[in-house]
Amino acid sequence: MSQCTSLLTPASMIGMEHIQAIMRPRGVAVVGATNREGSVGNTICRNLQAEGRQFELYMVNPKRVSVLGDKCWPSVSAIEGTPDLAVVVTPAAVCAQVLEDCAASGKVRGVVVIAAGFKEVGAEGLKMEEQLVEIAAHNNMAIVGPNCLGVQSPHHLLNASFAAAPARPGPVAFISQSGAMCTAVLDWSLETRVGFSAFVSLGSMAHVDWGSLLTYFGEDADTQAVIMYMESIGDARGFVAAATSVARRKPIIVIKAGKTEAAAAAAVSHTGSMTGSYDTFVAALRRCGCQVVGSMKEFENVALLMAKQPAPRSEHAVVITNAGGPGVLCTDAVCGAGMQLAHLQPNLIAKLSQILPAAWSRNNPIDVLGDATENGYQRTLETLIDEMNAPNGRDSGLSPDTALLVLLSPQSVTRPLETAKAVTETVAKARQAGRFRGPLVCSWMGGPAVSSSKDWFHEQGIPCYEQPDMAAYALGHWVQQQKLAMSMTQAPKSLGAEETAGGRQLLNRLIETYKATHGTQFTLSEHDSKELLMAYGLPVAAGIVCTSEQEAVAAVASNRVGGFPVVMKIHGGKFTHKSDIGGVHLNLNTQDQVLAAFRDIETSYRKLDPAGFEGVTVQKCVDVKGGTELIFGCTQDPQLGPIITFGAGGTMVEIFKDVATTPAPLGIEEAAKLVKSTMISKALLTNNDERSSSPNQRFKGCNPGQLYSFISRFSLVCVDLWEYVTECEMNPVIAGPQTLIALDARIVIDTEKRVVDPAMTFLDSLQG
Amino acid sequence: MSQCTSLLTPASMIGMEHIQAIMRPRGVAVVGATNREGSVGNTICRNLQAEGRQFELYMVNPKRVSVLGDKCWPSVSAIEGTPDLAVVVTPAAVCAQVLEDCAASGKVRGVVVIAAGFKEVGAEGLKMEEQLVEIAAHNNMAIVGPNCLGVQSPHHLLNASFAAAPARPGPVAFISQSGAMCTAVLDWSLETRVGFSAFVSLGSMAHVDWGSLLTYFGEDADTQAVIMYMESIGDARGFVAAATSVARRKPIIVIKAGKTEAAAAAAVSHTGSMTGSYDTFVAALRRCGCQVVGSMKEFENVALLMAKQPAPRSEHAVVITNAGGPGVLCTDAVCGAGMQLAHLQPNLIAKLSQILPAAWSRNNPIDVLGDATENGYQRTLETLIDEMNAPNGRDSGLSPDTALLVLLSPQSVTRPLETAKAVTETVAKARQAGRFRGPLVCSWMGGPAVSSSKDWFHEQGIPCYEQPDMAAYALGHWVQQQKLAMSMTQAPKSLGAEETAGGRQLLNRLIETYKATHGTQFTLSEHDSKELLMAYGLPVAAGIVCTSEQEAVAAVASNRVGGFPVVMKIHGGKFTHKSDIGGVHLNLNTQDQVLAAFRDIETSYRKLDPAGFEGVTVQKCVDVKGGTELIFGCTQDPQLGPIITFGAGGTMVEIFKDVATTPAPLGIEEAAKLVKSTMISKALLTNNDERSSSPNQRFKGCNPGQLYSFISRFSLVCVDLWEYVTECEMNPVIAGPQTLIALDARIVIDTEKRVVDPAMTFLDSLQG
Repeated sequence: MSQCTSLLTPASMIGMEHIQAIMRPRGVAVVGATNREGSVGNTICRNLQAEGRQFELYMVNPKRVSVLGDKCWPSVSAIEGTPDLAVVVTPAAVCAQVLEDCAASGKVRGVVVIAAGFKEVGAEGLKMEEQLVEIAAHNNMAIVGPNCLGVQSPHHLLNASFAAAPARPGPVAFISQSGAMCTAVLDWSLETRVGFSAFVSLGSMAHVDWGSLLTYFGEDADTQAVIMYMESIGDARGFVAAATSVARRKPIIVIKAGKTEAAAAAAVSHTGSMTGSYDTFVAALRRCGCQVVGSMKEFENVALLMAKQPAPRSEHAVVITNAGGPGVLCTDAVCGAGMQLAHLQPNLIAKLSQILPAAWSRNNPIDVLGDATENGYQRTLETLIDEMNAPNGRDSGLSPDTALLVLLSPQSVTRPLETAKAVTETVAKARQAGRFRGPLVCSWMGGPAVSSSKDWFHEQGIPCYEQPDMAAYALGHWVQQQKLAMSMTQAPKSLGAEETAGGRQLLNRLIETYKATHGTQFTLSEHDSKELLMAYGLPVAAGIVCTSEQEAVAAVASNRVGGFPVVMKIHGGKFTHKSDIGGVHLNLNTQDQVLAAFRDIETSYRKLDPAGFEGVTVQKCVDVKGGTELIFGCTQDPQLGPIITFGAGGTMVEIFKDVATTPAPLGIEEAAKLVKSTMISKALLTNNDERSSSPNQRFKGCNPGQLYSFISRFSLVCVDLWEYVTECEMNPVIAGPQTLIALDARIVIDTEKRVVDPAMTFLDSLQG
Repeated sequence: MSQCTSLLTPASMIGMEHIQAIMRPRGVAVVGATNREGSVGNTICRNLQAEGRQFELYMVNPKRVSVLGDKCWPSVSAIEGTPDLAVVVTPAAVCAQVLEDCAASGKVRGVVVIAAGFKEVGAEGLKMEEQLVEIAAHNNMAIVGPNCLGVQSPHHLLNASFAAAPARPGPVAFISQSGAMCTAVLDWSLETRVGFSAFVSLGSMAHVDWGSLLTYFGEDADTQAVIMYMESIGDARGFVAAATSVARRKPIIVIKAGKTEAAAAAAVSHTGSMTGSYDTFVAALRRCGCQVVGSMKEFENVALLMAKQPAPRSEHAVVITNAGGPGVLCTDAVCGAGMQLAHLQPNLIAKLSQILPAAWSRNNPIDVLGDATENGYQRTLETLIDEMNAPNGRDSGLSPDTALLVLLSPQSVTRPLETAKAVTETVAKARQAGRFRGPLVCSWMGGPAVSSSKDWFHEQGIPCYEQPDMAAYALGHWVQQQKLAMSMTQAPKSLGAEETAGGRQLLNRLIETYKATHGTQFTLSEHDSKELLMAYGLPVAAGIVCTSEQEAVAAVASNRVGGFPVVMKIHGGKFTHKSDIGGVHLNLNTQDQVLAAFRDIETSYRKLDPAGFEGVTVQKCVDVKGGTELIFGCTQDPQLGPIITFGAGGTMVEIFKDVATTPAPLGIEEAAKLVKSTMISKALLTNNDERSSSPNQRFKGCNPGQLYSFISRFSLVCVDLWEYVTECEMNPVIAGPQTLIALDARIVIDTEKRVVDPAMTFLDSLQG
């Protein structure tokens, strides 16, 4: 019934040896080598001719004998040598032919295709792109691109790109879906002396993608951190599997372009890729241990820190400043970034008072005042580091791991460069002696007066920021990434066959029934939606369908409903909001009231739709008093599969939009995180035991364990239903101290739903 | 009964002539002039000796004959000339003596006191500071400082500060409570060629403050925009009066340090000033037409724009880029900053298609692609500007006023500097011809490859940012400031004597009664709180106090309650939350139920507090069905007076914290803005007329005009009560289509409340 229409992405067949061929090739063939000055091909040839390179370079061009002084081969297959990487700079139209030639050589494992003119120009281009991938996949090759800037592997002096300059070698791997971001970040990195283990422009990401590269960088000894400019996630399964594994060992920082609808439109026209909803994307990335930053500046700021300093091992920081204002701004940022200021103990304050002017702040931030010289900074740091190593320091957040934030603003007596040198040397000495292990970040504010200090710091491996808040946020993002990585959980086990058998049977029956009258896309009635969820073992208030007054009275009299009071609601029909058409009667306590309600509902309905009346449902009243109304929802993301939404239900949904969202499936811990990230959790997670001692307690709370289990199971049911269900919602679900039950439900089905890969869900990826 | 304990601030006595003497002096006396190299005094002397200065300079030092080659006078009063400004660089201890000397001269109108050692060091210092202000106030002088960097007036070549360099002349006035921010911004401005009309370091702000300076800059022809680094508001009345007046004519951009509790603590220790709650502060500033930015970087970015480009006159922008990624980021930021992308009409797309490569974006952002040369940028701009001036362009947001955002990332064929020149010249030509009137902002991304382009742009008066989002947000802040200034409203008239007479009488009676048993600070009972608000004419559900069963039955039988059903609540006693102690019975329909409820409440209460039972209140049930629970609150800000809070009431307060806040008083328009800034407004502002056509409508809404009047009047009542009331709250207030009434109220009184100035409220300031 379901169709798989997407391009088969054989990215999962890409192995370490393919990326190794791209990042550490023994031999590189540049196909389309040319002497034409100023052309992309010529630039790449020159870039590859780097001095001291550790790979053989083979120019390939059937029309030339030599290019830029190097011998030219007529084809890749003709090369006498080991070209494991081919850099293809020919026009799009002949790339397929070049790839066949590469395949014929039997030696090429990695290919970088520079040319544009594929997927982004339409159907014809997409076909050509698919052809390239097919050739690669059938011949044990992996393609970077097309439509990309190329790749750089600075530790191996490999610049297989048309960027103007080679990146400096260093610990950060940068992967980007935008070539322009590569060139901009590269140019910035030369100024700030940020070094890279890799620079990869993914272009259209037809073959080599996030997953395959992350897996490689996870193992790569030169890489200590990964930064990524993302527009789309591509093969979600590969991405999730790789990211969850790597993020535990190495920080992954992401900027996601396309937050707004307008920007998403720009991204689509730009790369031809689908951009998912920003919130869902961020939620999924956080589940995988990746920290998402909000701007390019923040992205660069974190990269600057990760390139130069050790990972933070404490959430505490000490700020040293020569002026109050920057200290205040830095304090705002430290707190805003989720870190804390270490508390200064009285004995430390006493020691600092001996070396600092009388009016110093006696507080963290340590304001050494405007007339502080480099000597003042140095003695303050020394005193502080002594205290970090004293046994009593640790209570207050002060330890050799505490982060140091050192600020300077130009003052008349300040010597910025001398101070920079004093700070660098003091901290370096302490670090060497094992007396300081945390990150050191600086902010020398201003322009020309501090530019040589910034250069000094960056040369010495210390990040120096324009503004104090930037320093604090860079640190904070790294700390947050560590927290995300630490709190990653195993995905729960899928529901077993015995747990899904009842639900699947009912689903198939319902689909057969509805298809006859509703075609391939339809919404199940409330009653059928609830029956289906109950068949999957979820706690739902059952209703009995009654098509006549007599049936209604009989149902109430029977054991099936469970006694008065009851609720009666319109069944079926074509109106979405039952209460707005007089279709809901609550709190019916007698047979007479049941009779009257039936008549009233039927009459009200027939006024609007004379022939469409299908009956009513009767169910026991759930005592909602003291309970909280919740919403459980599931939508489908084309890249990430079922996405779970949880939050404040009933009419609160529309008013407060207090919902949190994350990909299915959720274990108990993830369900708890989801609940705790909503505001309504304040009403749910009231500790009932404390009630007696606190007469102010307004909320009755719920049983949290039961709630988390319910959410977890709901998410697993949604995974099982994912092939046919496009939307699933329970609203309200009533949660009270003794109550946890869905009162209403709605399921939307598309029997011809086009799923990228029926088995592809976040679950599989996590377990992958 | 109330006391005025604060320092009398005679800032309101500072006039234009005083600030004029500081910013445009005819003669400057520098008291404490010294040859001592490297001292603050020496630096100031040198700075004042600027070539081409338009003022006489008098060195003053009784111990010297000359300083730095200039004749030295023994005292200010001895000077033969017109020293209207005295810059005092002596230690704190002798400043009072110097000021007496200045006063004796009869010529000095402005004084800048550089020395620290006043308020910030404690009580002794505060006394010295008060003495200075007293001397100034009694001798027609105004003081900047103490504890400041000094002032600069670049158009007059006046550098009366110890900053290392003079600021460039330009249109922006900068006022700062942090000297370090002055030096940092100054140094930054030299690099970006941002020019200033004034640079004022306020220091302790003992005398000259925000209000007096804003009033001056509002009239100053050299000043076109004002930027302020604020830690505290000081004399709120003067600030509000000046800001509301100036913001209509010139943009005011503010950064407020001290968002977090920790930062506020740092600010207090730093300047000795009180830092108010951040949200209240921002709300007050926005009421005055000031735009508050979140970081120093944003602050500088807006200053860069205002220093160089004309004010935006459109909310629409066109983005031109040579790469997709930066275009996507810029789109995110344009939308995030509250602006819109102009829509490109088909004929413009057709024209651009003739000059751009086939794969261009056909959309705004206009992606001219990576191989675009300066010629491509130029022709795109020319075509665009043609269309801006075509009659049909305006529908789509395209006009000569549309803002232009031009982006560049380094690409192999791009020539950044040549492109910068082409863009500058093309736009300058169009501007000269009157064909382009909007702001032009650029972002040339990268490091060394674009640094000469940035210099070029800044030299040419065009702001160029590191990142596209910074360009968009700088523009957006200016647009938002204009919106704030446009939507400022007149404060409503205070309540007349006849409207307050009843309330005031009751208040006095209540205070007398409570004082006898409760001292000077107490909370009025629910009944008394409601009676007081009713006496002020607010719609409150009346309750009748009954101390016995008989009284309760009689009250219900009488006309005073208004018939069944009724509510009974505990009256008085010492427990805050009545329902938690069984003190509330709802929906009582018969005399028997009233009797039973009385007994039940009395029994429940006496279990907890045997001797404290004071009776119950009986009131008519208000039908809350279909109504929305709201909270109205008032707290007191020491600087801004009564602060009104409005939002979702009942238990929602604690869960959703959906409240908005602003200083009293509010007119109808301000009340409407307050309501619309809450989420609960979605439930309140439902259009009932549309209900019939939309069966999805869940909310009954309320009568908005009635709600706004209620809020406005509540705020005026709070202003009238401000002298004694520290807190006033009505929660819940029920708002439905036919209902608007407070069901509960609480008023906290302090008969010895220490108010800065009993008459000082935001109201007076606005009307001032």
